[in-house]
Amino acid sequence: MTLDLQNYNVRTDLAVDAKEMAEKRYNAPISGVDEEITESDGIKITRLNVHNDEGSRLIGRVKGHYVTLEVPGLRDGDTGLQGRVAEALAREFEDFLTLIGIGKTKSVLVVGLGNWNVTPDSLGPLVVENILVTRHYFELVPDQVAPGYRQLSAIAPGVLGVTGIESSEIVQGIIDRTKPDLIIAVDALASRSLERVNTTIQIADIGIHPGSGIGNKRRGLTKEVLGVPCIAIGVPTVCYASTIVNNAIDMMKKHLDKETNQTKEIIGMLDDMPEQERLGLVKEVLEPLGHDLIVTPKEIDKFIEDMANIVATGLNAALHEAVDTTNVGDYTH
Amino acid sequence: MTLDLQNYNVRTDLAVDAKEMAEKRYNAPISGVDEEITESDGIKITRLNVHNDEGSRLIGRVKGHYVTLEVPGLRDGDTGLQGRVAEALAREFEDFLTLIGIGKTKSVLVVGLGNWNVTPDSLGPLVVENILVTRHYFELVPDQVAPGYRQLSAIAPGVLGVTGIESSEIVQGIIDRTKPDLIIAVDALASRSLERVNTTIQIADIGIHPGSGIGNKRRGLTKEVLGVPCIAIGVPTVCYASTIVNNAIDMMKKHLDKETNQTKEIIGMLDDMPEQERLGLVKEVLEPLGHDLIVTPKEIDKFIEDMANIVATGLNAALHEAVDTTNVGDYTH
Amino acid sequence: MTLDLQNYNVRTDLAVDAKEMAEKRYNAPISGVDEEITESDGIKITRLNVHNDEGSRLIGRVKGHYVTLEVPGLRDGDTGLQGRVAEALAREFEDFLTLIGIGKTKSVLVVGLGNWNVTPDSLGPLVVENILVTRHYFELVPDQVAPGYRQLSAIAPGVLGVTGIESSEIVQGIIDRTKPDLIIAVDALASRSLERVNTTIQIADIGIHPGSGIGNKRRGLTKEVLGVPCIAIGVPTVCYASTIVNNAIDMMKKHLDKETNQTKEIIGMLDDMPEQERLGLVKEVLEPLGHDLIVTPKEIDKFIEDMANIVATGLNAALHEAVDTTNVGDYTH
Amino acid sequence: MTLDLQNYNVRTDLAVDAKEMAEKRYNAPISGVDEEITESDGIKITRLNVHNDEGSRLIGRVKGHYVTLEVPGLRDGDTGLQGRVAEALAREFEDFLTLIGIGKTKSVLVVGLGNWNVTPDSLGPLVVENILVTRHYFELVPDQVAPGYRQLSAIAPGVLGVTGIESSEIVQGIIDRTKPDLIIAVDALASRSLERVNTTIQIADIGIHPGSGIGNKRRGLTKEVLGVPCIAIGVPTVCYASTIVNNAIDMMKKHLDKETNQTKEIIGMLDDMPEQERLGLVKEVLEPLGHDLIVTPKEIDKFIEDMANIVATGLNAALHEAVDTTNVGDYTH
Repeated sequence: MTLDLQNYNVRTDLAVDAKEMAEKRYNAPISGVDEEITESDGIKITRLNVHNDEGSRLIGRVKGHYVTLEVPGLRDGDTGLQGRVAEALAREFEDFLTLIGIGKTKSVLVVGLGNWNVTPDSLGPLVVENILVTRHYFELVPDQVAPGYRQLSAIAPGVLGVTGIESSEIVQGIIDRTKPDLIIAVDALASRSLERVNTTIQIADIGIHPGSGIGNKRRGLTKEVLGVPCIAIGVPTVCYASTIVNNAIDMMKKHLDKETNQTKEIIGMLDDMPEQERLGLVKEVLEPLGHDLIVTPKEIDKFIEDMANIVATGLNAALHEAVDTTNVGDYTH
Repeated sequence: MTLDLQNYNVRTDLAVDAKEMAEKRYNAPISGVDEEITESDGIKITRLNVHNDEGSRLIGRVKGHYVTLEVPGLRDGDTGLQGRVAEALAREFEDFLTLIGIGKTKSVLVVGLGNWNVTPDSLGPLVVENILVTRHYFELVPDQVAPGYRQLSAIAPGVLGVTGIESSEIVQGIIDRTKPDLIIAVDALASRSLERVNTTIQIADIGIHPGSGIGNKRRGLTKEVLGVPCIAIGVPTVCYASTIVNNAIDMMKKHLDKETNQTKEIIGMLDDMPEQERLGLVKEVLEPLGHDLIVTPKEIDKFIEDMANIVATGLNAALHEAVDTTNVGDYTH
Repeated sequence: MTLDLQNYNVRTDLAVDAKEMAEKRYNAPISGVDEEITESDGIKITRLNVHNDEGSRLIGRVKGHYVTLEVPGLRDGDTGLQGRVAEALAREFEDFLTLIGIGKTKSVLVVGLGNWNVTPDSLGPLVVENILVTRHYFELVPDQVAPGYRQLSAIAPGVLGVTGIESSEIVQGIIDRTKPDLIIAVDALASRSLERVNTTIQIADIGIHPGSGIGNKRRGLTKEVLGVPCIAIGVPTVCYASTIVNNAIDMMKKHLDKETNQTKEIIGMLDDMPEQERLGLVKEVLEPLGHDLIVTPKEIDKFIEDMANIVATGLNAALHEAVDTTNVGDYTH
Repeated sequence: MTLDLQNYNVRTDLAVDAKEMAEKRYNAPISGVDEEITESDGIKITRLNVHNDEGSRLIGRVKGHYVTLEVPGLRDGDTGLQGRVAEALAREFEDFLTLIGIGKTKSVLVVGLGNWNVTPDSLGPLVVENILVTRHYFELVPDQVAPGYRQLSAIAPGVLGVTGIESSEIVQGIIDRTKPDLIIAVDALASRSLERVNTTIQIADIGIHPGSGIGNKRRGLTKEVLGVPCIAIGVPTVCYASTIVNNAIDMMKKHLDKETNQTKEIIGMLDDMPEQERLGLVKEVLEPLGHDLIVTPKEIDKFIEDMANIVATGLNAALHEAVDTTNVGDYTH
């Protein structure tokens, strides 16, 4: 009842989640983490910069830039809003490219992580299908490529359980052959906050780290591993059930706190509930199906499709100068 | 904060769930409910007969026969076991037909409830696709129908949000036109126990009642409504997230109970937590996404496909004398 | 070798095809058929009015209005053009409603014919999924329906081989229950001209006649059968292989004609090739797979999806006054 | 009107087709090509060995072994027959492995060529989904792998138009990283004979050559390119429309031949019809949609799914000693 209990802990792949949790835990702003928030037209953009080791340790994320778009309105399926989010994503992504010094002629490989047959994990492969790839034109008919396009390729490497090969090994093999200047890895994430599921897009210049995302990644996609910079784009498509149960326990504590404010000893007892016991409780609730259970809206198929379309549209506009917000939809379906 | 809290209560469509909950609540066997359990080859079959009003009231189910097949092994994707479950389902279903007096030449309409574009709700339409329909042969070339087949038709009427028409109205319209002797309604259900999700099949001679199933049914498919007997076949494909949270709260109560057995006043306070407050807690955990959140294994697409295949194979064998367990797979895909 | 040879004849569901064939056969304009053609922005619109029995006999179509939108550019997947076609379809359809006297408050049932599991036949069900249905709001919360919407419902009745029931019987049953003022039947068609496949939309006030469309319809959906007017919307998604073979034989004749203009007796022989022999040739080429073979672009999945989206978007704009070409996309996916 | 006419010529990827055409052309057995045919239980197996350069030149195939399973009964969807074909495929494939000297512990990479979003081209990716991969167990928990399994991995590299990268480059990158001893490449093919579509499986030890298969391959997957032996498994899922038209023209010639046997000069003229003119005719029939048009049964979705299941089941049984014909179905879905 020790090691595998970790599976029953709160899990999130979002930096904004992690920062919120840290602020709550320490009841103070987190040093080493800069934050800038803008909001307009229903789109809230948070730019986090984890710039030193202390900030990294406090929020449990590696150093780097994290841009998060939060758009609660996406839950309503409004196609007009979807278009505006794609535009905002394109702008943020262009800024990101400038920030890390990737110019307009650098070649890019988009990697769509996940399993196209497992709906909540299919975001990456769906994005790949809609990327406006051009690398083959540069290879086969270089003199016929119109200006305003860069070399762009895309791959959905599949998941370990289907291929028997780590995604990172497949991607490394392709990088060795095709020598892109930048990797963009798109993945479905887990969030700890239900309201961020299917309404949030995170861009980060830290690549993909082992254990992140919904699928089972044992090795990362980072500059250290790949030898090429890797930007990660993630969309939370699920909460883990364990998160919900943990939330319920927290809520219950607060409730009792309020009810029993005269009974100091009880509060103490609750506060002292050892981590092991708490996780044991979570485990008991989720037995026998275990830690892979996800919480999701019933209409997940449609949400994933919409988010994949937004991400692909935004990336196409950001990566090809000739593609912009007036014609950005012409290349996806 | 009154009416809509009902959505945050524990919800189950399974009679075995309901009976377990009642036994726990009353801490006694439930009168008016007969139970017979057999188990062999990894398949547990529970036959419940709710035979009087008291039993009905105690477990919150209408009077009738409920047969439940529970097969935990189905979670492992073993196709051999899947075949044996289809056989067991066929046998149980044949007994059921005898029980309610539907002979071998009576015509049957299978109704697959649910939405084929919403994975957890797609069980019914998937079953319909694999039913060995024959009605058109009886209509067009009656003298060429081989012996051993009955008139069988099948329809997936869609869901209210897509059609704008209640499923029951569509089915009634078709019954008026085609005059079947029996309706079999197949639907995806919610269970309160995670271990029954995607491992359980329930047969009941009570039809479909309003509010049951995953989709939004406002009117039922019962003998009273349709004028024809209706057998319901249900497979739980999800738990509602509210169920998980309720379970977590119960577990927390038990835990505190144990820890604080010296503090009687606290126990009292917990036991007395008014229903309203408990539901308020559940609601708080699940806000803002609300009561439609489901808990499911990530691999739901494959589970649903397997279960639909088992149900269709079992029904084909039970309904056509000429189709049996040696050739039962020849007609489905 | 007589009756079943009919399957090997040239088949088309398009009135413009039929008129072209008739003009070629008789080498003259067809009396009793009025034609009006407009063309702008890459969209050619042909309005045929078959207004007497002679016209009907000559082109082999029942009397009525046929509006055809031809858009060769649709083959290139340009989403901007797709939007303009949806707008043109909406305008033409509104005119059509005026023409046959269906006012803005009349209730409508959209019927999506075909099989959602057979890609070339899935157009109708795909359109149904994207229709903005409202009937349930009128039934359940009539005082909350915003102005500018009419009662709209939609159904995909499935195909005979899957349901065992004629589509027309299912539709009749639903009409009896829900009393719509107008039926719109959407179906995938066959064309005799390859260039019209997936680039053409036909609207006709004649309903669906037996044997039309890709699926196997034995009974029609017409005002005579249903008691309610029925507008048919059809998109050719395939050519039958027999059509291609027939075209090849015609071409071969012409070729020999040219080559052998000195050999009058040969020409005569070719011209005299009895219909039976010609069909026998076609049959021989297509044996053993027979008459259900279709000719289609490899990328049929994407073409069908695009066309379904155009039709649904156009219908939503035409049927609801509050939905227009600026927000027409907000309700489909 | 010269070069691109090649697209309108008869195309086949099957060696048995090619041999039949050559025998017809030369009206004699083909030297350098050995043939052995067995037939039982509705399964015809042809083993061709193209063993010298003359044979290769005469039938237009590279030297190597070609085993073809032809099973006309597969068109009827009988699952019992499907199981027997999987068994036959497993036996033939095991013999093939022995023939080329691949022992039971050699590691294998299955490559599923084609596009999972283009139904007729989706065979390869569908097979990959059902391969019983084990390589990750050998990597992560080598001491826990049961006896009777070899290292098996599988990848669907996607198509050039979606990825911007040649399949062969992706595969080479993965080979460099994972060092398999053998490649098995699975691909959807075109046949020139309609009756072989979806009823035939070809195994060949020649790998994949440029231009073969339905998709656009510009570089091959051969031992020369990859440095590892490559067995190709192909299933014809389509005929090209140009093949049908060519067949029609041939049939027409024969017909006129018979009719005009008194007119020798005509026969001569027909026989002499220059290749260019013939192709011009074909082109005219198929304009404007061009050479990518395919002829296929309407129910192609289901045929492809069935064939993918047969191939995956057969490969799993052939590649893992512990998997045999009694449990062969337990690992696929």
